[in-house]
Amino acid sequence: MTTGALRTTIPFSRGVPPLELIPANELAAIAETVLEEHPDTIFQYAPLGHNKGDEKLRRELGKFHGVDAEEIFVGNGSLQVLDLLACHFSKNGVKTVFVEVPTYDRALQIFNRYGARIIGLPLQKDGIDVDALLSRLEESTPALLYIIPDFQNPSGVTTSEEKRKELIDITERFPLTVIEDIPYRELRYHGITPPLLRKIARRKDRVITVGSLTKILSPGLRIGYALSDEQTAFALAGLAEGTYLSPSPFCHAVAARALADGLMESTVNKAKAILAPRHDAAVAYANALLGDSLIAVPDGGYFLGVYLPATMDEETLICNAREEGIMLTSGSAFYPERRCSDTVFLRLPFHALHPVDFAEGLERLIRVAAN
Amino acid sequence: MTTGALRTTIPFSRGVPPLELIPANELAAIAETVLEEHPDTIFQYAPLGHNKGDEKLRRELGKFHGVDAEEIFVGNGSLQVLDLLACHFSKNGVKTVFVEVPTYDRALQIFNRYGARIIGLPLQKDGIDVDALLSRLEESTPALLYIIPDFQNPSGVTTSEEKRKELIDITERFPLTVIEDIPYRELRYHGITPPLLRKIARRKDRVITVGSLTKILSPGLRIGYALSDEQTAFALAGLAEGTYLSPSPFCHAVAARALADGLMESTVNKAKAILAPRHDAAVAYANALLGDSLIAVPDGGYFLGVYLPATMDEETLICNAREEGIMLTSGSAFYPERRCSDTVFLRLPFHALHPVDFAEGLERLIRVAAN
Repeated sequence: MTTGALRTTIPFSRGVPPLELIPANELAAIAETVLEEHPDTIFQYAPLGHNKGDEKLRRELGKFHGVDAEEIFVGNGSLQVLDLLACHFSKNGVKTVFVEVPTYDRALQIFNRYGARIIGLPLQKDGIDVDALLSRLEESTPALLYIIPDFQNPSGVTTSEEKRKELIDITERFPLTVIEDIPYRELRYHGITPPLLRKIARRKDRVITVGSLTKILSPGLRIGYALSDEQTAFALAGLAEGTYLSPSPFCHAVAARALADGLMESTVNKAKAILAPRHDAAVAYANALLGDSLIAVPDGGYFLGVYLPATMDEETLICNAREEGIMLTSGSAFYPERRCSDTVFLRLPFHALHPVDFAEGLERLIRVAAN
Repeated sequence: MTTGALRTTIPFSRGVPPLELIPANELAAIAETVLEEHPDTIFQYAPLGHNKGDEKLRRELGKFHGVDAEEIFVGNGSLQVLDLLACHFSKNGVKTVFVEVPTYDRALQIFNRYGARIIGLPLQKDGIDVDALLSRLEESTPALLYIIPDFQNPSGVTTSEEKRKELIDITERFPLTVIEDIPYRELRYHGITPPLLRKIARRKDRVITVGSLTKILSPGLRIGYALSDEQTAFALAGLAEGTYLSPSPFCHAVAARALADGLMESTVNKAKAILAPRHDAAVAYANALLGDSLIAVPDGGYFLGVYLPATMDEETLICNAREEGIMLTSGSAFYPERRCSDTVFLRLPFHALHPVDFAEGLERLIRVAAN
C-alpha cells in the first residue's frame, strides 16, 4: 500500500516561519551597517536604565502602534515577555488566569510554572465565551485573562469587535487585566482587522498587548514586546534586569533599523502574498474533506483548528500518523485540563506547506483516523 | 571646601567591563564573516533540538574547559543560566541554598524569587566557613551551595585548594550540589589558580560550573553557560525552551568563531595587562589608607571588599558619599539578612578606574565616613 508520496513526511507540527518569509539578505545588510556604526555599544551591555529595551527600537514600535515609547518593554522574544508578565502579576497577588480553550500550550506552561490557578473558558467562533467568563469572575478576582484575539493559536479563531468591546466593559467592572497576544495580527489574508483591545480600552492599565517580530521580520532577532502603561513597563524592565541583566544590543539595533527602513512592512506584504493562497487552499481542502470539522475559517495566521472524529485516542492517532509520514503536535497540550470527547483536537499549520502537500497530509490523516 | 577634582564623580558601583577591554572591532569583523556565511540560519530560530546552544559554540567551550559538549548548556548570560538552575532545583525539591556571606546580590534575588530558604555562612579569607556548613547540613538537605570561588564578588576572596577539596568531600557525604560561579576566574594577576571544583569532583552530578564570556570577550553577546552532566544540561535546555524558546543564533555564531579564532585568549591577556596595575595600586592605597579593613588581597577580578568603620549607617554614608561625588553600591544588598556591626561593608571596583582616580575616591570616602 505504501506509495512513493507516502515517504515524504508532512509536518503538521511547529509554527516556525518558513525561510522564504525571512528577509535574511536585507537583515544582513542592515546588520553590517549597524556593525560599522556602533561596534562599541553593540558588544557592551545595554546602557544602564535602558532595560526597557533600545530607545530607537521602542520609538519605532511606538510609531507602529501609536503608543508612547515609555509604555513599551522589549524582551528576548514574546514568550520571555509573557514569562516576565506572569512573574509580575504573580508577585502582585494575581493568582487566577482565565484562558481560551484551547489555547497556546507554552502560555499554559508558563502560568503553571508561576503556580497560577488556570480557568479554561470555551472558545467560540467569535472569541471566548463571555457569559462563562462573567459567571466565574465573581469569585475569582483579581485575575488575568490571556487571549490571542487574531487567528488564534491553535484554533484559527478571531475575536469579533463586539466581543472585544464586551471584554473591555468587563475590565471596567471587575479587577481583570487582559493580556492580548498578537503574534499573527499583521498576517490577515481576507476581511477587516478588528481594533486592538488596547485601542478601545479606556483604562490603559487594564490591557497589555504582547507583540513579536518573529512572524513579520525574523525569529532569530528574538524581539518580543509588551505595550502597557509606564509603571508596568518599568516593572518588567526591573524583572528582566534581575533575570538576564541586559538584552542583546545588537539584536535591538538591527530590529530598530529594519523597522525604520520599512523592512517589516515589505516582509508582511511578501508573507501575505505567499501565505494567502496556502490559506485558501487549506481551507478549501479541509471543508471538502473534513465536512464541518473546521473550528473557524481563520482568514489569517498560520493554523487551522479541527475537531476530528476518531476511532482511537490521541496518542494512538499521533503514533499511527507518524508511521504514515505525518508529524502531528499533541492537541491535548492546548487544553489546561483533560478533554472528554469523541473527537480529537488537532492544530494543522498550513503556512509552511504547498497546497499539494497540505492536501496530501490531510488525506493521509483521514485514512489514519478512520482505521 | 569644594575643589575642582571633587566635581568628577568616582564610580565605586557596577562591575561593567570598561570599553577598552572589549575587542569591538575584531568582533565586528567576525560578525561580518558570520553574516556572509550564514544569513539564513542567523535570522531564523535556532534549529529544533539545539536548545542547549549552538553546537560549534558548545564544542569550543568544551575544548576550553576539557568537557564534553553534551554536558554544556549555553544561555543568555550567566544570570539567566543561574535563574534556570534555580528553577530546575526548586522543581526537583531542593529548597535550601547555602551562600557565602557576603555574596552576589543578584544571585540572592534569584534564589529568593524561587522561594528558597537561603542560609548565609561566613566567608573567611580562604573561602566559606566549612565547619559552619557541616553543622547546618544535617537538618538542611537536599541543598545547593552557591559560591564564587575566584576573586569573589563582592569580597575579592579566593577559595583555597584545600577548602575546595573539603567541599568536594562534603558533596560525597551529603545530598549537596555545589554551583561554582566563575565569571572572573581567567582574570588572575598574581599567584596560582586553584583547580575548578568540577575538576576535583569524583561525582560530576554534584558540581555545576557557571561560566560567562562577559568579562573575557563581550557583555553584549550575552553568553553564559553551565558545565554539568548531560541530564542537567538537557533539563536546562527544556526550561530555556519553555521560557524564551530559542537563543539568538547570531550571538552564538559570533562567540563560537571568536573562540575558535583565539580572540578570547588575546582579550584575557590584554585585560590582565591593563587590570594588574590597577589592582596593585588599589590594594596599595587601600592598605595604606584603610589599615586592615581589606577583607582579602584579591590578586584578580574586579573588586576589593572592605569593612569600613563608620560613625553613620549605610544609607547616610551612601547619601553623603554621593554629595562628595562617589557612587557606591549598597553593601547590605550582598547580605541575605540584616547585618549588625559597627562597620559598613563596601565593594570597591577597581577595574574601571585609573589608579589616581581610585586613590581620589578612597580619600573622599574616608573623609565622608569620618564626618
